Formats: sequence, C-alpha cells, structure tokens
Amino acid sequence: MNDDSFQTLTGDIREFAKERDWEQFHDPKSLILALTGEVGELAELFQWGKADEALARFSEPWRKQRASEEISDVLIYILRLADVLKIDIAAAATEKVQDSRRRFLPEDFFGLAPEKE
Amino acid sequence: MNDDSFQTLTGDIREFAKERDWEQFHDPKSLILALTGEVGELAELFQWGKADEALARFSEPWRKQRASEEISDVLIYILRLADVLKIDIAAAATEKVQDSRRRFLPEDFFGLAPEKE
Amino acid sequence: MNDDSFQTLTGDIREFAKERDWEQFHDPKSLILALTGEVGELAELFQWGKADEALARFSEPWRKQRASEEISDVLIYILRLADVLKIDIAAAATEKVQDSRRRFLPEDFFGLAPEKE
Amino acid sequence: MNDDSFQTLTGDIREFAKERDWEQFHDPKSLILALTGEVGELAELFQWGKADEALARFSEPWRKQRASEEISDVLIYILRLADVLKIDIAAAATEKVQDSRRRFLPEDFFGLAPEKE
Repeated sequence: MNDDSFQTLTGDIREFAKERDWEQFHDPKSLILALTGEVGELAELFQWGKADEALARFSEPWRKQRASEEISDVLIYILRLADVLKIDIAAAATEKVQDSRRRFLPEDFFGLAPEKE
Repeated sequence: MNDDSFQTLTGDIREFAKERDWEQFHDPKSLILALTGEVGELAELFQWGKADEALARFSEPWRKQRASEEISDVLIYILRLADVLKIDIAAAATEKVQDSRRRFLPEDFFGLAPEKE
Repeated sequence: MNDDSFQTLTGDIREFAKERDWEQFHDPKSLILALTGEVGELAELFQWGKADEALARFSEPWRKQRASEEISDVLIYILRLADVLKIDIAAAATEKVQDSRRRFLPEDFFGLAPEKE
Repeated sequence: MNDDSFQTLTGDIREFAKERDWEQFHDPKSLILALTGEVGELAELFQWGKADEALARFSEPWRKQRASEEISDVLIYILRLADVLKIDIAAAATEKVQDSRRRFLPEDFFGLAPEKE
C-alpha cells in the first residue's frame, strides 16, 4: 500500500457504505454496538491463552491472520464512527497523545501503570 | 497535522510507552482490556440518547470534544495492539475492506444489513 | 427450574469448570475477556436493527432464543468472575440498587437520564 | 439478604426504573451500550495488573469493593435486558450450562481450553 493515511482508508469505508446504501444503518449507537462486537471477537482470540505466551502464539501465521482481521474490523468501525461524527481522528488522536505526555510525566510514572480507583 | 499516516501515530505511541517504561504492561491481553475500557467510555456517552438525535447532540462542541477523546483512545489502543503484534494495520484494514467488497456485493446487499444468526 | 438462586447457578458453573480442569484458565483478566466476547456477540444481534423495533423483532422465537443464549453467556461469566473473586454478587447488586435509589432521587431524576460528562 | 433469587433482584431493578420514568430509555440497544460501559469499567480495574496477582490484589478491601460495584453494574444491566426482552434468564442460563456439559465432554476437553478459529 502506498498511501497509509487515515483519510484514504476513511474514504474507502465511506464509499463502501454508500455503494450498499448502508449509511442508513450507520448512526453512532449502531456503530458503537458493531465496534463492541468486533472488540468481542478480538477478545475471544486471546481469552484463554497465557499473557506471556501471546506474542509467540500469534506469530503463527493463521493466528496472526485471524488477529489481523479482527483488529482491522475494530479500526474500520472506529474510523467510520469518527467520519459520521465529522471528527478528524488523526488530529484528535495526535492531540490526545500530546495530552498524555503532559499528564503522565516520565519522571512521575516511569515503570508505574496508572490505576483506576 | 501534516502527516496523518498510521506509521507516524503508531511511532508516537510506541515512543510514549518506551519513555515511561510501560512496554512491560502492553501484552496483548492487557491491551485488549484497555481497549474494552475505552469502548465502554465511548458507549457511555451515547447510551441513553435517541439514535436519531445523536448527530445533532454531538455537534455541540463539548460533546464532540468528549467523543473525540474517547474515539482517540480506542484508536490509540488498537494501533498499539497491532504494533505489539507486528501487524501492518493499514495494509490489513485495506485488505479487509476489499474482502468485504467481494463478500457483500452491492446487487445482493443494497439496503440490507447482514444479520448474525 | 425450582430454585432460581444465584448460589445454585454459581455452584453449577463452578462444578462445570472443575470437571473439565478449566479452573486454571479462569483468572480474572481472562474471564473479563470472555465476558467482553459474549457482550460482543450480544451486541451483534442488535446492532443494525432500529431501536424501536427491537422488542418486536426479538419476540420472534428464533431471535429470542439467540438473545437468550448470549444473555446467558454474559450472566455465566459474570457469576463465574464474582465466584473466583469471592464476591457475593447477589448481596453486592442488591446494595448497589439501594445506593442508586439514594443517588438518583425520583424527584431529581424523573424522566431524566443522567449524562456522563 | 434472605432471598437471593433472580426474580427478586429483577423486580427491584424494574421498580427502580419505573419510579424514575426511565423505562423509556431502556430499549435493548441502549441497555447493551450501558452494559458495554460497565464491562469497560470492570476491565479498567484489572487491565495493567499481572494475571497471576489479580486474586491477591483484589482481596484488598478497597479493590474488592470497587470490583463488587462494577460486577454488580454488569449484573444489573444484563438482568434488566432480559426482563425487557421477557427472557427468563435463570432458566436460560441453567439450560445453557446443561448444553455446555454436552458440547464439552470432560473426556474430550479435560485441561483443554476450546480455541476460536
């Protein structure tokens, strides 16, 4: 693939929906349910394996292929949701990473995972 | 943002994790749980509003900003997961859209949402 | 079923796991991934249908049966997780409903869905 | 709690919704989004800790209390969803466990976690 931009893939997905007259189904609540479905399929691939064996297991081609497909589906629905909401997801995520750089300073959080309370 | 490529954002996130020594927490199972958490936060924003009012409600700046942040978090974790698994997510998702074009031909699925049985 | 208590079903599920030597797989993180998987399957059943037609569509026997199965799977994993964590889920949930009665007084929240900000 | 039956808790939750005129928000799609939100909050509690330390960490009272609350919220929404769909969740889940006993015979699956392909 020559162009790996967010805009190109977002445009592909939009066109895919339009060609099938599926825009009518793509309200935000329905898209989040679809996203939930794909995250669920991804979770099912990894659920029972040991955490420290996951990388080795998923380097096997058939498992890597399955994971690629589910990861792709998650990406496709989050891009579609952003598009429908007119959110520039690449800009928003870049800004979010910058925010996190400021909130979680390396000197305060080095080796420490923030815990939800 | 000049460069909205997947590689640039993936690289930013990788560097962010490395600077904080958080790579140790980023095994696939943990990342999928984090992804589940962010999809949950996104779902909570939309859960009780009416489906056909969602676009109007989320055009209000504060709600659009909140949705942008949660959508960004979902994107960040799915990119991080792909990176850890050495999956080229842009290529995989492009291929997945192509597959879907073949599986769901417009003449067979025009205006019809495929139903899981 | 004569006894529809939480303890009876929790005990059945525990015995099921033990008979198959599956207790080794049932650490909390893995169980939450399994729960995520089942919620995803449930979401997929409802994702593209219209919200106000869902009750009618799912009164059809085959759809009701499918929904029953996915709802059961969600229940089974949340009961199993509570059991593994030695949480009395019936007592905890009863207490949670009581808390919600106090937090969301009818006079303040009548007809108003609390919104996450 | 003297009566830990599914019917008692389901009835409490139904009454809670009715007293606040919240039945209007409890269509299946919205309830599944709310369920997704609660599973997400549960996932966030466990995401970064090590799998084999989770039981010890969540035996600490404050963490056990937090987990109890999120587990309760998941239970509450799945019971509410079943109620709205007129599904007898206790009977359905009991039947589902019986089905699983037949599908996963101990002699075939002893110590083996079924893998999704």
